[in-house]
Amino acid sequence: MTGQHLLDPKRKPSREGVLRAMAKVAEILPPTPLLPLEVDGRTLWCKAEMLQPIGSFKIRGAWHRLSDLTAEECAKGVVGVSSGNHAQGVAWAARRLGVSATIVMPENAPKAKIEATKALGADVVLYQRPGEDRDAIAAALVAKTGATLVHAFANPWVIEGQGTLGLEAEAQLKARGIAGPLHIIACCGGGGMSAGLGLACPDAALSIVEPEGWDDVIRSLAAGKIVSVIDESHPTPCDSIQTPRTFPINFDALQGRVSSSATVTPSDISAAMRLVYDRLCLVVEPGGAAALAAVLAGKIELQGAAVVTLSGGNVDWDVYRQMIGAAA
Amino acid sequence: MTGQHLLDPKRKPSREGVLRAMAKVAEILPPTPLLPLEVDGRTLWCKAEMLQPIGSFKIRGAWHRLSDLTAEECAKGVVGVSSGNHAQGVAWAARRLGVSATIVMPENAPKAKIEATKALGADVVLYQRPGEDRDAIAAALVAKTGATLVHAFANPWVIEGQGTLGLEAEAQLKARGIAGPLHIIACCGGGGMSAGLGLACPDAALSIVEPEGWDDVIRSLAAGKIVSVIDESHPTPCDSIQTPRTFPINFDALQGRVSSSATVTPSDISAAMRLVYDRLCLVVEPGGAAALAAVLAGKIELQGAAVVTLSGGNVDWDVYRQMIGAAA
Repeated sequence: MTGQHLLDPKRKPSREGVLRAMAKVAEILPPTPLLPLEVDGRTLWCKAEMLQPIGSFKIRGAWHRLSDLTAEECAKGVVGVSSGNHAQGVAWAARRLGVSATIVMPENAPKAKIEATKALGADVVLYQRPGEDRDAIAAALVAKTGATLVHAFANPWVIEGQGTLGLEAEAQLKARGIAGPLHIIACCGGGGMSAGLGLACPDAALSIVEPEGWDDVIRSLAAGKIVSVIDESHPTPCDSIQTPRTFPINFDALQGRVSSSATVTPSDISAAMRLVYDRLCLVVEPGGAAALAAVLAGKIELQGAAVVTLSGGNVDWDVYRQMIGAAA
Repeated sequence: MTGQHLLDPKRKPSREGVLRAMAKVAEILPPTPLLPLEVDGRTLWCKAEMLQPIGSFKIRGAWHRLSDLTAEECAKGVVGVSSGNHAQGVAWAARRLGVSATIVMPENAPKAKIEATKALGADVVLYQRPGEDRDAIAAALVAKTGATLVHAFANPWVIEGQGTLGLEAEAQLKARGIAGPLHIIACCGGGGMSAGLGLACPDAALSIVEPEGWDDVIRSLAAGKIVSVIDESHPTPCDSIQTPRTFPINFDALQGRVSSSATVTPSDISAAMRLVYDRLCLVVEPGGAAALAAVLAGKIELQGAAVVTLSGGNVDWDVYRQMIGAAA
């Protein structure tokens, strides 16, 4: 009963597409836990996406995309562009489907992410960040091999797949007797997950959180047009959401859909990572802690049952040790 | 349809009791994830009990016990004896039921555990380990107030409650298309969880793992009678399973039921804690990593689908940092 429009690479992502992605994701991935965290008398519902097989939510969108490849497309392989988590998502899905994968990654990505991507059988092509244009490198690979590009966020399947996180959280809250209104607070890089969540849960309030200096999506929504980050050399511990510029497919889905937003400092992030260690016994990476960091810092006003994305947990030990130590 | 025998404090724990506990636990606690971990081409199924609201499996037995208290017993309160995890389990269940709780804890228990127990509203009485007899202190409290003693492992409800971990894991494997034979490898202190698992999953092979120097249960099973640890001042990072002597109710349930056993060194434990950090994005405490440590060290021969208990994650940051650093 799949409409052909749900397979069109140029389509707008849709709630119908998220529902279709959910059925596919549920076949192979158990829901990640939605863990209650009491903070100042309020319950935050933390979606523990670091417990996905690749340590982040990116497996959702990658699986939705790759599992829809035709036999002909499978034979030509896929190309991904990623700072590390989407890389592992694409590599994981490709291995499961027997498809070859090449991933374009920044050379300063966390070592653990580069190694994990290789361990999943993908070819890794490194580029300099800032400096080289990763999208141009990927385009050149695609032109040469005919492979299918799986962008980390500017792709309808990827957006729909990430949205399944919202459907899962909604169902988990319902099972605990908590029905809307929901307030979803999301870590935001290029806006793939945020766009998907907005579509998945149309009645939920949606807040997005970006790292200080990497707030291009927030500024784009304020400007009513896509703008880039001002300084691509601004340091941030949040490699996974360190994205200089969003794309029209994400911008269009988010415009008018975001209720509030915030930026977080490295110190906000440290405090959130530490609380997650102390109270949830989970390892969250800096970029995956942004949403919680904003709530803890009082930068997002909560409305309704608050779902916070803990988006991933792939962080090199030396960085983790320093970030947690800084909060102690 | 509850037989009165299932409420007798002097009863032997039973599979029937575990099934009853499961129904009660399932009402308030979602199953913890059973996460696959690939090691040397084998899949270990890790039961992530640190994701319980109190950070360990001990909530299971405590809830099963306290939720069966009569109104009269509730009015007199409960006394627990614990190095920290059972303490939090009893305190959590007591708070939920509006029952007062006093917990006898060693003064060298992890600070986080003492603080968390107090934060849950329990009164904490500290004792010296080694030296003072914690059971005697608890008995004196009970004699004075008429409170109900909830022992950390030598109690039929506690044993049955901990056994629910096994039923959950079995159901989760079945949902993934994996039916027996199971091999459960359990971290073992006094033998509460091990005894419960043996009853819960009668067809599973059962292995128990204790810290080097604290192998009284293994030695008791070998001797055919209960023996104590040889040196109660032997240092171990595994505070949560640092138990000098088991009790007849545990010994009787385990005798003839344990297929194999092993002891683990601090170095084995460090390696397991690190792998759990790197690959599962979870924080596991030293005692909660013992079962995995034994498997990784090749000390347990696997038979069937291997379920490994990651029993808890309550570990002070300074200890965690040192243990993970030691493995790096």
